[in-house]
Amino acid sequence: MRIAIMGGDGFVGWPTTLHLSNRGHEVHILDNLSRRWIDTELGVQSLTPMDSIQERCRIWHEVTGRRIHFHLLDLAKEYERLKAWLAEYRPDAIIHFAEQRAAPYSMKSDRHKVYTVNNNVNATHNLLAAMVETEIDAHLVHLGTMGVYGYGTVGAAIPEGYLEVQIDTLEGGPARQEILYPTRPGSVYHMTKSLDQILFQFYAQNDGLRITDLHQGIVWGTHTAETRLHVQLINRFDYDGDYGTVLNRFLIQAAIGYPLTVHGTGGQTRAFIHIQDSVRCIELALSDPPARGERVKIFNQMTETHRVRDLAHMVADMTGAEIAYLPNPRKEADENELVVENEKFLALGLEPITLSQGLMEEIVDVARKYAHRIDRKRVPAVSAWTKEIAQRVERDPERRLKSVS
Amino acid sequence: MRIAIMGGDGFVGWPTTLHLSNRGHEVHILDNLSRRWIDTELGVQSLTPMDSIQERCRIWHEVTGRRIHFHLLDLAKEYERLKAWLAEYRPDAIIHFAEQRAAPYSMKSDRHKVYTVNNNVNATHNLLAAMVETEIDAHLVHLGTMGVYGYGTVGAAIPEGYLEVQIDTLEGGPARQEILYPTRPGSVYHMTKSLDQILFQFYAQNDGLRITDLHQGIVWGTHTAETRLHVQLINRFDYDGDYGTVLNRFLIQAAIGYPLTVHGTGGQTRAFIHIQDSVRCIELALSDPPARGERVKIFNQMTETHRVRDLAHMVADMTGAEIAYLPNPRKEADENELVVENEKFLALGLEPITLSQGLMEEIVDVARKYAHRIDRKRVPAVSAWTKEIAQRVERDPERRLKSVS
Ligand SMILES: NC(=O)c1ccc[n+]([C@@H]2O[C@H](COP(=O)([O-])OP(=O)(O)OC[C@H]3O[C@@H](n4cnc5c(N)ncnc54)[C@H](O)[C@@H]3O)[C@@H](O)[C@H]2O)c1
Ligand SMILES: NC(=O)c1ccc[n+]([C@@H]2O[C@H](COP(=O)([O-])OP(=O)(O)OC[C@H]3O[C@@H](n4cnc5c(N)ncnc54)[C@H](O)[C@@H]3O)[C@@H](O)[C@H]2O)c1
Repeated sequence: MRIAIMGGDGFVGWPTTLHLSNRGHEVHILDNLSRRWIDTELGVQSLTPMDSIQERCRIWHEVTGRRIHFHLLDLAKEYERLKAWLAEYRPDAIIHFAEQRAAPYSMKSDRHKVYTVNNNVNATHNLLAAMVETEIDAHLVHLGTMGVYGYGTVGAAIPEGYLEVQIDTLEGGPARQEILYPTRPGSVYHMTKSLDQILFQFYAQNDGLRITDLHQGIVWGTHTAETRLHVQLINRFDYDGDYGTVLNRFLIQAAIGYPLTVHGTGGQTRAFIHIQDSVRCIELALSDPPARGERVKIFNQMTETHRVRDLAHMVADMTGAEIAYLPNPRKEADENELVVENEKFLALGLEPITLSQGLMEEIVDVARKYAHRIDRKRVPAVSAWTKEIAQRVERDPERRLKSVS
Repeated sequence: MRIAIMGGDGFVGWPTTLHLSNRGHEVHILDNLSRRWIDTELGVQSLTPMDSIQERCRIWHEVTGRRIHFHLLDLAKEYERLKAWLAEYRPDAIIHFAEQRAAPYSMKSDRHKVYTVNNNVNATHNLLAAMVETEIDAHLVHLGTMGVYGYGTVGAAIPEGYLEVQIDTLEGGPARQEILYPTRPGSVYHMTKSLDQILFQFYAQNDGLRITDLHQGIVWGTHTAETRLHVQLINRFDYDGDYGTVLNRFLIQAAIGYPLTVHGTGGQTRAFIHIQDSVRCIELALSDPPARGERVKIFNQMTETHRVRDLAHMVADMTGAEIAYLPNPRKEADENELVVENEKFLALGLEPITLSQGLMEEIVDVARKYAHRIDRKRVPAVSAWTKEIAQRVERDPERRLKSVS
């Protein structure tokens, strides 16, 4: 297959690119490298030393003899170039990672909110409009988030995209129907993924586009089979307060002997998946496209759930780190249940890598190995969800550790 | 009150502006005049001769002694100027009309799809982000559309925004919940209003913004009490295939002795409201804002429903025009039911003007009076919803009249 990988220079995109190239597909990355610019803006860098995309592609060729083609292109701003590219290359499949993906970054300031909405909505919509216009029949696989569900607000197990509900009809009798799960995004970033869902629904219905939306949990882990092939193929590892997810920040805190900082009670339950499984799921989704005219296919791409404080204890147990409780900069419930259905990928043959299996390797092979590159100042999460919360967090004397357990 | 009217130069915005100014409010129009540019792009013009916004404001002052303040500003592209304006003027209420509002225009070409999404989503989101940032506590009243409901797909009467459903909970028992009505927009334009709904939900929940969303039917009629005060205060009247709604086009076809062109079987049911009632509803909504922290208040702003072919017969009966059936350029069901709840405005005191009362006046006072200004070539609807439909419509020999009844 010829596969276009939008955002293929990113954390999930890069190992996906390598894996699909290794499988013999003709792989093209389209990326505007905005994520690297954001590193520059924030003054942060990947824990793992990361080469330029051009250099990575050259090394891949050296190691495997295979070519990855890189095209510098902004999906959100360069509609005409995107369309021309699709018309020329006519990919069989398109994997769409090309969005601003950090919730804290999306809440940092009004400028960041405006950027995130503008970038993500236009990237997705431009892609859809260009697919219709060029009349290519590519399967579009998009990376969405578990966050569109709003963490189980309806009090039922979270189904894979569609919720069965009962409605009182005009004729009086009740009728059962499947609807898109009522979305309740908790940040501007998550909201853009809710907007994407509606774009997909429309274009699948109006134009028969074949679309798969993967509602992904938090991706953890660094290495995959292919990134291990050469040290300069290593994946990025974000640990800063904006892009570093909760687990990565715990690993880094443990590595530098800093207490693991838990926000609020740590009772928030999150869904997780290992990067190797994420890549595998994308491949599975590619192999099982919806038919033309079928509704959007939705998978929950996650393999386990944990409360944040339980994660902290897991890392503490393995490393001897302490745990500290801080005020939560996010607007969310202190404690939430999260029961998620994920039978579809299991049925397709996914065999998950669990945190209890893989975490020690992350601690030794990644966090400790690169500990000398850690910039301690970058670890705290500082983006507050509202002005009120910002003040409250600020008042907390020097954001001091409230209790060390 | 100090009221900002975003898009106040438009068809609904202008009479709303006059009405609120007449009531003694301090009224500011913010508009980028994009609608006037689109007239230029399409080579069409309002049936009624329409002065510049500056001239209209001058005449209003001459006639009433009141001032309407006009600010040329693009909500979608000029975030910083918008924010500065809000910070300086701190309006008590904001009425948001400033979106590209024609479904056929939004489906005209990929460029028009991209423009509509970009313009509408950014206009709404910029406004919300700027309201949060400036910490003004204005009540935001937005004009949405009945089209977000997708014309009754769930088979129940269309409630005012929120649908009560029954869900099987984790504990096993069923629970009743109110959710945002599952949206099924039928065009890119309507889709942007579905996106708006999610933006509103998020900002009401995260930041406590006070928001009212009016799900409006097709607005008909031209004059209001205030536009009648001077001939140069007259409202715009669109009759072209993109901006002219079905009723306006029937009126114009009747006035020039052309058959009333019905798409498909004409079994599509649509919701309607007179422009005077629309203005009145907006005023009623202004007087009844939600509390801070309350969910978005949603009203169905429509007063009656009709099938398109019944409308055609109504106009034919009054004018003697013929009716012709043409292939439908839209992708939609041939026939649909539409039962809509609109108790909330009736409870607030709305007394609707019905089509059977007001239609004759439109025929005589508007369509016939300005018939000499009609450009016949502009009446047909040409924007097709998909490439397939475009071909089918095209094949129809010279888009000839299929049957004249
Ligand atoms: N990492 C996670 O834990 C996680 C969890 C759930 C969902 N996701 C989703 O998976 C996708 C990939 O995530 P990631 O962690 O690899 O993110 P990332 O930020 O590392 O990668 C995204 C890539 O897209 C590019 N990009 C952004 N906007 C673009 C535009 N307008 N035009 C072209 N390229 C653009 C960036 O430069 C970057 O290389 C995202 O859509 C994200 O929302 C990620
Ligand atoms: N007319 C109807 O039948 C109808 C029905 C349902 C809902 N609505 C909604 O009511 C609102 C008003 O409708 P209308 O018929 O008056 O439309 P209109 O096109 O006549 O008016 C919209 C106004 O907004 C302005 N505008 C558009 N984008 C802007 C931007 N980015 N920045 C600043 N100004 C911008 C335009 O210049 C125009 O003056 C729209 O949001 C529409 O979707 C209208």
